[in-house]
Amino acid sequence: MKALRFENNQLSVAEVKVPRASEEAVVRVLLSGVCNTDLEIARGYAGFQGTLGHEFVGVVEDAPEQTLIGRRVVGEINAGCGKCEGCAGGDARHCPARTVLGIVGRDGAHAEFLRLPIVNLLPVPDSVSDERAVFTEPLAAACGIIERARIDANTRVAVIGDGKLGLLCVQALKAQVGTGVTLIGKHQTKLAIAARRGIETILLKQLSHSLKHCFDVVVEASGAAGGFALALDLLRPRGTLVLKSTFSGTTSLDAARIVVDEINVVGSRCGRFAPALELLRQNTVDVESLINETRPLADGVAALQRAAESGVLKVLLRP
Amino acid sequence: MKALRFENNQLSVAEVKVPRASEEAVVRVLLSGVCNTDLEIARGYAGFQGTLGHEFVGVVEDAPEQTLIGRRVVGEINAGCGKCEGCAGGDARHCPARTVLGIVGRDGAHAEFLRLPIVNLLPVPDSVSDERAVFTEPLAAACGIIERARIDANTRVAVIGDGKLGLLCVQALKAQVGTGVTLIGKHQTKLAIAARRGIETILLKQLSHSLKHCFDVVVEASGAAGGFALALDLLRPRGTLVLKSTFSGTTSLDAARIVVDEINVVGSRCGRFAPALELLRQNTVDVESLINETRPLADGVAALQRAAESGVLKVLLRP
Repeated sequence: MKALRFENNQLSVAEVKVPRASEEAVVRVLLSGVCNTDLEIARGYAGFQGTLGHEFVGVVEDAPEQTLIGRRVVGEINAGCGKCEGCAGGDARHCPARTVLGIVGRDGAHAEFLRLPIVNLLPVPDSVSDERAVFTEPLAAACGIIERARIDANTRVAVIGDGKLGLLCVQALKAQVGTGVTLIGKHQTKLAIAARRGIETILLKQLSHSLKHCFDVVVEASGAAGGFALALDLLRPRGTLVLKSTFSGTTSLDAARIVVDEINVVGSRCGRFAPALELLRQNTVDVESLINETRPLADGVAALQRAAESGVLKVLLRP
Repeated sequence: MKALRFENNQLSVAEVKVPRASEEAVVRVLLSGVCNTDLEIARGYAGFQGTLGHEFVGVVEDAPEQTLIGRRVVGEINAGCGKCEGCAGGDARHCPARTVLGIVGRDGAHAEFLRLPIVNLLPVPDSVSDERAVFTEPLAAACGIIERARIDANTRVAVIGDGKLGLLCVQALKAQVGTGVTLIGKHQTKLAIAARRGIETILLKQLSHSLKHCFDVVVEASGAAGGFALALDLLRPRGTLVLKSTFSGTTSLDAARIVVDEINVVGSRCGRFAPALELLRQNTVDVESLINETRPLADGVAALQRAAESGVLKVLLRP
C-alpha cells in the first residue's frame, strides 16, 4: 500500500506492507488531515520515523471484534499499555509506554490502511460526512482546553492565532461554554470564518492597548514566537495561559512576568473524541470552511508543502 | 538619614531625608535583609530607582494611629490603592496601581527609616527575635506556594535550589502540610540545614535518573537557567511547576514539553505575613542557620557584594 513516510530526514510516498489485524483493528483510511505537527515532525520534532498522520476517518477492514468490521470510525491517537493508572482509568493520553499514531512509535494515517487498538475507535454518526469527521481529532484537542482551564460563561477568553487550531479552539469554546471568546489573528479572511459564527475577532495590528491585562484566559494557538509574550500582555494577574501548539526547539519567555503576575501556564495536548464528535453531529462548528483542498495520497509530499504555505488552513489526503 | 540607594545604575549609601508620617506610618528599621531581588534590581530588574530593600523588622516611630507607636512590626510590601477589587478584598498584591517597598515606586528598607501604610504592618510577638522576624517576608513568600498549587500530605514535592529561598520553601512546606518534600541543591553545607530539620535532600550531581517524572509538584527556587529544564524532567505528566525566582532577562524553555506532558506552570510571588509569623513564633523553621553575617547599613554596598558571593545565604543590615 502507499504511505507518506518520514525516514532519514526525507519525506516520500512509499510502498509498504498492509498492516494485519492481530489484536488491533485495521482501518481503511477514507480521508486524512495534514496537521502542523506533521510539518514539525518533518522538521525533526519528536524524532519520529515512519508513516505520518494522526487525523483520519476510515472504515474498519478487519478486527478481532467482528461487529466492528465495516463500521465508519475515527480513532483516538494515544495507544496505552492498558495497565498503568491512567490506562486503567480509561485515559491513555499520559501512559508512559504509549505509542501515538503517526507521532510516537506507531505508523500513522497518511496511508491506505492503519492499525489501532479497538478501544481507540469510535463509530461516526451517519449524519457526519467524511469531510467533517476527519476533523474529530483536532476538534477534540480544542475541546480539551476546558479540561485544563476553568472556563465558564463569565470567563473572558482570548485565542491567539487564526490558523486551523485557533479557529477550532474558539468555536469549541463558544459551543461548549458559550463564553465571551475573542479570536486574535493576522488574517482578515481567516478571522472571517470565526466572525461568521458570531465570534468576536480582532486583527492583530488593530489590537488596542486597552485590552492589556483584560483576559482571564488566553489560549496560545499561533505557534509563533510572539504569541507567548502577547498572551502575557493580555492576561490579568493570576490569569491562565493555555499552550496548545507543539513545535520543535525552545521558546524564550519572560519568567519574571509569570512570577510577578502569578500567571498559570497550562499545557493542553489531546482531548477526548466523544465531545468533539457530538459537536460535529450537532453541526455547531464550521470545519468545512477550513478545508483548502483535498489531494490524492500519492501527492502527499506536495500536500505537506502546500499545507505549510501562508494562508492555507487544512489540506486533506485521500488514499 | 542613611539609605542604600540604587540610582543611575549606581549603588551607594547616601544621606536622604527622613520620611514623614502623613497618612502612613514611619518605621525605624532595626534590621533589614538582603534578598536576591535586591541584587537583580542592581542588575536592572524592574527598572527601580531609589532605596533598596523589602525585608525588615522595625519599631513604629510615628503613625496616624497612636496605639501603633512604639510597636515592633514587620510589614507587607505591597501598598495598594485601597479601592480596586483586590484591595477591597484585603489583598493588594495584584493591585494594578500598587507600589512595592524597595521594588516599585516606593523607597525601601535598607535605610534608617521607612514608610508604609498602617494596614501593611503586623506586630511581632515578643518571643520572636529581630533576627527571626526579619525573615517574615521571605518566609511568607515560601508560605505562599500552597496558595498557588494544590499540595497535601500525599503530594510528592521537590524544591530545586538550596539557596535561602529554597531552604525557606522546603521548611515552610514541611511545616504547613507535612508533605514528603525533597530539596535538590548543589551545596552539601546548605542542604545540611534542611537535613537537620528532617527534610530529605539530594545533591544535584547525585540525582538519580529514577526520579524522572516522579514528582507531583516541583518548586523552582534556584533562579538558574537549568532549573526550569530540570523541573520539567522531574515532574509527572499533568504535574505542577511552581516558579518562585524573579530575575531579569528571558529564559528559554521547551514549550512542547509543557504541552505534551500537560504541565501546569504557576508563578508565585508574595505570600501573606500572618502564617509566616506564626511559623516563626512556633519555632518550626530554622532561619538562624541562614544568616551569614550582619553588617552596618553604612557598609551596604559591600554587603550586597557579599550577598552575591557563592555559598552565602542571608546578609543582614543594621542601621
